[in-house]
Amino acid sequence: MISHKHLEHFTKKVFLSLGIPDNVASIAAENLVRADLRGIDSHGVARLSGFVRLIKAGRININAKPNIVYETASTATLDGDAGLGLYVANEAMKIAIQKAEICGSGWVAVKNSSHFGIAASHAEIAIGYDMIGMAMTNASPLVAPAGASEGYLGTNPICVAVPTGKYKPFILDMATSAAANGKLEIAQRKNAPIPSGWAQTVDGKPTTNAHALKDKGSLLPLGSDVDHGYHKGYGLGSVVDILTGVLSGANFGAWVPPFVHFLDVKQSVGEGIGHFVGALKIDAFQPADEFKSRMDTWIEGVKNLRKNEGIDEILIPGEPEFRAEEYRLKYGVPLNDKVMQDLDSLAQELVIDKLTVNS
Amino acid sequence: MISHKHLEHFTKKVFLSLGIPDNVASIAAENLVRADLRGIDSHGVARLSGFVRLIKAGRININAKPNIVYETASTATLDGDAGLGLYVANEAMKIAIQKAEICGSGWVAVKNSSHFGIAASHAEIAIGYDMIGMAMTNASPLVAPAGASEGYLGTNPICVAVPTGKYKPFILDMATSAAANGKLEIAQRKNAPIPSGWAQTVDGKPTTNAHALKDKGSLLPLGSDVDHGYHKGYGLGSVVDILTGVLSGANFGAWVPPFVHFLDVKQSVGEGIGHFVGALKIDAFQPADEFKSRMDTWIEGVKNLRKNEGIDEILIPGEPEFRAEEYRLKYGVPLNDKVMQDLDSLAQELVIDKLTVNS
Repeated sequence: MISHKHLEHFTKKVFLSLGIPDNVASIAAENLVRADLRGIDSHGVARLSGFVRLIKAGRININAKPNIVYETASTATLDGDAGLGLYVANEAMKIAIQKAEICGSGWVAVKNSSHFGIAASHAEIAIGYDMIGMAMTNASPLVAPAGASEGYLGTNPICVAVPTGKYKPFILDMATSAAANGKLEIAQRKNAPIPSGWAQTVDGKPTTNAHALKDKGSLLPLGSDVDHGYHKGYGLGSVVDILTGVLSGANFGAWVPPFVHFLDVKQSVGEGIGHFVGALKIDAFQPADEFKSRMDTWIEGVKNLRKNEGIDEILIPGEPEFRAEEYRLKYGVPLNDKVMQDLDSLAQELVIDKLTVNS
Repeated sequence: MISHKHLEHFTKKVFLSLGIPDNVASIAAENLVRADLRGIDSHGVARLSGFVRLIKAGRININAKPNIVYETASTATLDGDAGLGLYVANEAMKIAIQKAEICGSGWVAVKNSSHFGIAASHAEIAIGYDMIGMAMTNASPLVAPAGASEGYLGTNPICVAVPTGKYKPFILDMATSAAANGKLEIAQRKNAPIPSGWAQTVDGKPTTNAHALKDKGSLLPLGSDVDHGYHKGYGLGSVVDILTGVLSGANFGAWVPPFVHFLDVKQSVGEGIGHFVGALKIDAFQPADEFKSRMDTWIEGVKNLRKNEGIDEILIPGEPEFRAEEYRLKYGVPLNDKVMQDLDSLAQELVIDKLTVNS
């Protein structure tokens, strides 16, 4: 186990050693490690070496100055200047919040950005301002539209973060695919099959092979098949791609660049990847205190429902992650050997202190 | 087959005969019959007698004057004055569009309303203004949160309508349950089983019984089970309930009143049912022409994907409905006998001309 503060410090040093300014490195490290803290291991420091490769390949601009290219009272289009998405999306969210403070809501489409970590990291900033926060991003094309046998959409997550009264905030943060790619990676490490309905082969046949993507297969949208409404998951992933990619001026669909340092020469339809963030000021709709008390009633209504056999408690979106956070704040973050080796190699390469276990 | 214009005329006469003002009756009839035109038969005139019962029971206010109770430059909370949702949500959308015209986006939470027909009817108004439109509503609690064995959420639809260039608009209009209730009704009429994953029994057991709801069962959220991410459908349905119900001041969760004229005495947590509509002005983010041409590229990207065996064409969200519309504009709307009898009874009761087939 490694304390998350230590992990964050290490991550920041990695970014600093590559020439990223101190304030940017702080925000990026905090946002990346928040994934580890919340138990979403696939999106945390497991991706750090990926960021290092992208920076070293010049595909992420260490001195990025995000700038607004279109603006109205409640909206903006932000050019991320090819910066770290972990930082750029945070800046976008701050702009959305400023706008919402003044005119009730704020919406920022971001182009020319890169992987932004977990969507919740950005959306949840709004909660501190008594606002509902939203964040989404597009990503490289792994998910097949309903009826297609190749990927066109990313796992395109949607996050909605909502303030509450006496309970933990409501934070939905979900991929629009049937399963996030991280879940396939877990099965790959265990050499276990995946449930039918997560992925299909290159010929569009159902498969339980966790390595389906490596064999040119694709992920399936939420809903998994025609009988269970996978046109809905396809539709939601499309909406995310439209708001984050088409509307911002970023790449979209098959053209979204992958999270790898070598970029195959491919036609481009925009700049970098895209995000879309927003904030709704609650006081604009009803007094915030009233709203929070109503959210508490909403939560209690869920908690008091009759439960299925074997279910001890019905969880509110965000609750599993907060529970992981509570545990990991106390006991530290468990890192698997492969990730640990990866971080050790980074330390050596960048000439910084290695992480030590139990630190 | 009955021409949709005839059906609309009949529907308007029904509303007029109950004392609804002419302009409201026109909008309501057009929105209701649009569902029949688009092939969503469960949401069209099949519900007309339901509206009549609600109006006669005094649960829908025929002289409703929707009024804004909170407002900022980009937002409003609208009190629907217990009016017809078919009309109230249209008014809300017009307010959202006015606000978006001035400050880039507009968002209206609606309380004290009633069933609003298909969400697309309202969201798609934005398209004519070069805006992206959104509409959602809550509804009576038929859908169980992940792990619960009783309903708490409505089928809570989300619609996003997006302008395009040379193609039909992109219109996603989806229930957040695995299957809309209308699909169960079709199976009931055919006495056919439903796929596993749509509904569960009163004990939370999987069922293929199309009458599960009548036996106190509940619908399952999009995703259908734990392996296929039904916590996501639950989360999305919850977000709809929070924006439409909690934020607006309407009822939410278990307290949302059903679409029936007899109301059981139940604690209330707000007024009527709730909607949430919004508009994003495309010019606020990038020139609208550029956006529409990018949407065309996005659509062509989907159309050119490799197809699964047996799939002739990959459809864009909204395309199946536009094809139904094209057909029904030409050949008329088919009404099943039960609906036809229902409309005949209404004509008799309200002393208006009956519909005639082939009219």
